[in-house]
Amino acid sequence: MVIVMQSNASEAQIEGVIHALEKHGYEAHRSDGKASTVIGAVGVGIDYDHRHLTLLPGVRSVKRISEPFKLASRGFHPDNSVYTIGNVTIGGPEVIMMAGPCAVESREQVDVIAEHVAKAGAKVIRGGAFKPRTSPYSFQGLGEEGLRYLRDAADRNGLIVVSEVMDRTQIPLLCEYSDILQIGARNMQNFTFLKELGKAEKPILLKRGIAATLEELLMSAEYIMSSGNQQVMLCLRGIRTFGTHTRNTLDIAAIPVLHSITHLPVIVDPSHAVGIRDKIPPVARAAVAAGCDGLLIEVHHNPEDALCDGPQALYPETLVKLMGEVRAIATAVGRHFD
Amino acid sequence: MVIVMQSNASEAQIEGVIHALEKHGYEAHRSDGKASTVIGAVGVGIDYDHRHLTLLPGVRSVKRISEPFKLASRGFHPDNSVYTIGNVTIGGPEVIMMAGPCAVESREQVDVIAEHVAKAGAKVIRGGAFKPRTSPYSFQGLGEEGLRYLRDAADRNGLIVVSEVMDRTQIPLLCEYSDILQIGARNMQNFTFLKELGKAEKPILLKRGIAATLEELLMSAEYIMSSGNQQVMLCLRGIRTFGTHTRNTLDIAAIPVLHSITHLPVIVDPSHAVGIRDKIPPVARAAVAAGCDGLLIEVHHNPEDALCDGPQALYPETLVKLMGEVRAIATAVGRHFD
Amino acid sequence: MVIVMQSNASEAQIEGVIHALEKHGYEAHRSDGKASTVIGAVGVGIDYDHRHLTLLPGVRSVKRISEPFKLASRGFHPDNSVYTIGNVTIGGPEVIMMAGPCAVESREQVDVIAEHVAKAGAKVIRGGAFKPRTSPYSFQGLGEEGLRYLRDAADRNGLIVVSEVMDRTQIPLLCEYSDILQIGARNMQNFTFLKELGKAEKPILLKRGIAATLEELLMSAEYIMSSGNQQVMLCLRGIRTFGTHTRNTLDIAAIPVLHSITHLPVIVDPSHAVGIRDKIPPVARAAVAAGCDGLLIEVHHNPEDALCDGPQALYPETLVKLMGEVRAIATAVGRHFD
Amino acid sequence: MVIVMQSNASEAQIEGVIHALEKHGYEAHRSDGKASTVIGAVGVGIDYDHRHLTLLPGVRSVKRISEPFKLASRGFHPDNSVYTIGNVTIGGPEVIMMAGPCAVESREQVDVIAEHVAKAGAKVIRGGAFKPRTSPYSFQGLGEEGLRYLRDAADRNGLIVVSEVMDRTQIPLLCEYSDILQIGARNMQNFTFLKELGKAEKPILLKRGIAATLEELLMSAEYIMSSGNQQVMLCLRGIRTFGTHTRNTLDIAAIPVLHSITHLPVIVDPSHAVGIRDKIPPVARAAVAAGCDGLLIEVHHNPEDALCDGPQALYPETLVKLMGEVRAIATAVGRHFD
Repeated sequence: MVIVMQSNASEAQIEGVIHALEKHGYEAHRSDGKASTVIGAVGVGIDYDHRHLTLLPGVRSVKRISEPFKLASRGFHPDNSVYTIGNVTIGGPEVIMMAGPCAVESREQVDVIAEHVAKAGAKVIRGGAFKPRTSPYSFQGLGEEGLRYLRDAADRNGLIVVSEVMDRTQIPLLCEYSDILQIGARNMQNFTFLKELGKAEKPILLKRGIAATLEELLMSAEYIMSSGNQQVMLCLRGIRTFGTHTRNTLDIAAIPVLHSITHLPVIVDPSHAVGIRDKIPPVARAAVAAGCDGLLIEVHHNPEDALCDGPQALYPETLVKLMGEVRAIATAVGRHFD
Repeated sequence: MVIVMQSNASEAQIEGVIHALEKHGYEAHRSDGKASTVIGAVGVGIDYDHRHLTLLPGVRSVKRISEPFKLASRGFHPDNSVYTIGNVTIGGPEVIMMAGPCAVESREQVDVIAEHVAKAGAKVIRGGAFKPRTSPYSFQGLGEEGLRYLRDAADRNGLIVVSEVMDRTQIPLLCEYSDILQIGARNMQNFTFLKELGKAEKPILLKRGIAATLEELLMSAEYIMSSGNQQVMLCLRGIRTFGTHTRNTLDIAAIPVLHSITHLPVIVDPSHAVGIRDKIPPVARAAVAAGCDGLLIEVHHNPEDALCDGPQALYPETLVKLMGEVRAIATAVGRHFD
Repeated sequence: MVIVMQSNASEAQIEGVIHALEKHGYEAHRSDGKASTVIGAVGVGIDYDHRHLTLLPGVRSVKRISEPFKLASRGFHPDNSVYTIGNVTIGGPEVIMMAGPCAVESREQVDVIAEHVAKAGAKVIRGGAFKPRTSPYSFQGLGEEGLRYLRDAADRNGLIVVSEVMDRTQIPLLCEYSDILQIGARNMQNFTFLKELGKAEKPILLKRGIAATLEELLMSAEYIMSSGNQQVMLCLRGIRTFGTHTRNTLDIAAIPVLHSITHLPVIVDPSHAVGIRDKIPPVARAAVAAGCDGLLIEVHHNPEDALCDGPQALYPETLVKLMGEVRAIATAVGRHFD
Repeated sequence: MVIVMQSNASEAQIEGVIHALEKHGYEAHRSDGKASTVIGAVGVGIDYDHRHLTLLPGVRSVKRISEPFKLASRGFHPDNSVYTIGNVTIGGPEVIMMAGPCAVESREQVDVIAEHVAKAGAKVIRGGAFKPRTSPYSFQGLGEEGLRYLRDAADRNGLIVVSEVMDRTQIPLLCEYSDILQIGARNMQNFTFLKELGKAEKPILLKRGIAATLEELLMSAEYIMSSGNQQVMLCLRGIRTFGTHTRNTLDIAAIPVLHSITHLPVIVDPSHAVGIRDKIPPVARAAVAAGCDGLLIEVHHNPEDALCDGPQALYPETLVKLMGEVRAIATAVGRHFD
């Protein structure tokens, strides 16, 4: 922690700050400059609330130094985290396509879509059995029945499964049917839930909240990792801004920024970021060009009648065309799709 | 719903939209203007995804007409909702002060603070027994023991209790000790949780998420109300913007806006909105001047040693001074503190 | 400036940073802690781009210490700036009401409104002769003719004038007719313009840009002040957020924050912040309760036919009612309207 | 315009709205539905302030139908606008690289950089002679001398020039030396300036303001176009969000969105969007993958000593590497660099 004193701070005020630091067990390094005195505090517990110092007389500003997260930090774990799930490897040079319907609607629906996405080159099928809907009057998902359909369709097509778990009580059920547990953006800071996920034995796909900073996203990953589960993937799905032309705004630069501060794989969900079919492929291409480790895309063979988010589902043939484009882009940036 | 066709839309495209509407059971009203054709769709279920129409050929834009929420709407329930809890009435002409520590730390701590806030004129004591902390390494609360201390301190001082419930498994415990169940901003869209709260028999204090629109806040209230619990209060605690001088940005105009679109009481939490002690009283005064129904404020007799959010806790004497100011302001706007 | 090295930074990297600092003429203070090495740089020119250091090997983060503005800073000028313009004093204990139409439309219109606002207790009349309109097809103002009407109406009613100057070529004309030069939010960072305003001999009302930080607002004030004009007032008129229920979001906490970091008066414009008539009085009351030094409000006797922003103009009788409320609120916070 | 009445609106209120519309010369189309009555208003002047209707009794909401811009609209001009400037064609299948220093510092500096960027494959050299700096204490540019250096360096290397014009008084000078006039984000809504640019005979590169909506950006283009200059290019350079890891947030989806609503070319400036050297190439690649028509990138052979924005300038060799990547990506999306 670094404490910057006001230019007119008195000697007593400076000593007051040093005293407060030592009282909390920190080592204080004082440097007096022309403009102002700066005090470096070393050995700070990451749980200390630096605003305490902000309120001491004579203090102008306080800056935290140590990152609040450890296990998720690139400094702590310099190499990329790579997870092998079944015959799929995430976090390596290969970029992974994860595709499927927003919601599992029927056995037929998921069978048809699974076959389409497998043929197109996806390795993972996505699909929700429990749907978090903004409206209590919307379709809420098929529950376990949906998970069974999804599992069967995946197995028949050599795919692995990612599906959302909405609260801690659903964890055992999802672990039974899904290979990757998806945590929705709205649950990113549901901390009691994150701790339970730390005990699950499946990799976690953690979505960034629509107003979460990258530091908060990594703190949430830290909750899971510090509870025992090291297999966390981050998923970008757009942040909320003043923009209204798309559902959310994809923070494209977050891809290289995350790769520099964390070792966790970064997946991008252009479907939720953009929210309207025809604008999704350009954004998906951009995410691969920026270096993401995977894409999570909604696909439906009959989106007009989809029970959930049809307007942001790609047609199977659009996915095929997109795969061709992203294969070439991946090569251009030193990556590849299998 | 209103569908605006592109100026160059063909007759076939216009009929295509009308056909799509009727297929979904809506009544279509067509009006042809010089600039473009407008189609009014009547009888649209609030669950229909209007983006479907956006994707039809010839459509320029689609506007939803009916509000997606009913029970929370002022149109559905023209009079203010007023709740009487013990000897406290919330939502009437009286403005209510809810004050107390961020977290219950010990029996002594909560006893001292309860006495201070009761003397100052608060009717409700706040205090967390389960703390959602951004960091897994931070103090997480005393749990049931803390609730017992809080209940006892409240009873001894003629106060009622508001305390946060973090997930559905904690609901029965909180109902046993707390008069009002507080739902944190991070849980505002935790829908499985909201449904369970609809079965609880305690009033709910629902906090606005840091990036939630007012419509989303009311949709979350709708989740609770449509599950059976009509006693919902809304709580504003700041939204996330590009600003960095305060913890969050209090959307002060949301107070009159909410009063015009919903009948639910509006409480303001300036402590979390601002996040730094010396800026909280001016914002608390502003909230009362703008017409809020209550304030939720953090107070601590020894904030330097608080285990949680000490820097945003008011000293008891500051609360006393603030009460004097807000009493006069309430009178100026036709309200009163008891 | 404070440079925080990565935990695994090499001795050579640390020396590299110290060398770079000294090369630019700064004094380096090194403190080695358990977690990492921190280097305090003293004597850093405020023009130095600290991102240079961010890019040096081994550096984790760089924090600027000295505020980038001087003349506008409370540290440089501890007492409030108070300006006396005619018989009006701005920045003292008195809160000032500035009111009038969005645009001057005719001699009759401004005469009628001037009489209303003077009777209501306003000291300053506002009115635009040159209108910055988002659309090139909108009414653009009466120009000098409008200024003449405004001046005459002000003189007849014992008011002073504030009117917007849109670019440097208009400065002499505005100085001739207006007592205060208003700079619109869209021009807040039009730097060549700000420098010219530094040579004007009238006080400046500088509006915060809709996405400007408080630091950027004060840097723009610094442009004017460093060019010779010390009489600057700041005006808050709402920032752009994801919210859509009001035109902009008033950052209410910016009032006490600005009062703590600068000595310049803070005026609030609730009309542009909110943008719809019925929500403006609650927000105006809130601004006074939070400690603003003045209000800038749009008033029109016949807003239905106003050529500009009629829907956000108060009726004269609403202004009278609002004045009664804000007088009482000002008293409650130790201020007063005359 | 579409007016939605409240469900409980009286017949008198409905007629009141129809009367108001007809009074302003609109044709009213009424459709009565179960939920509410909807009134379509046809023949609306785009300058009418629809908030007037919002305030009439019984009105729930008012939606504007006609786009407020014409000349910039894809509907008005279905084909892409293509500009040929010297031997450079912008807006066609070719993607254009525009590169150069933030500021012209000396004849030598711009000569060296011009040679580098021309060799790398850039067609346009960028460089500022007048610099808008947030701080009045920062380097403000060489003025006309700088323009002369830039022009000479461009001519010697077969490049064309883009340089920023900061206000109307500089237009003639910039027209003399520069092939494209760049308008900074801070001037995007400086309307008197935009009108003057409409009389200039050079193409305009109009940057999106950091908090401007796409509609506002197009309205500003409309100012220029309606004043006579049809050669406008749009430039995306990042918007302001709550994010702090990069200077701004590039709204990547705005590229396909703009291509769908306007015929104007879309250029992307990743240097200002990201603000830190090592994160710029991934974002530049993303912009090409998303379909932009050109890139505007800062390059400096000695950024450590640059007088402006050195930390966001690419090294010449990085530009060479980036060109190789974006060439391949352009091909993957059906475009090409020459």
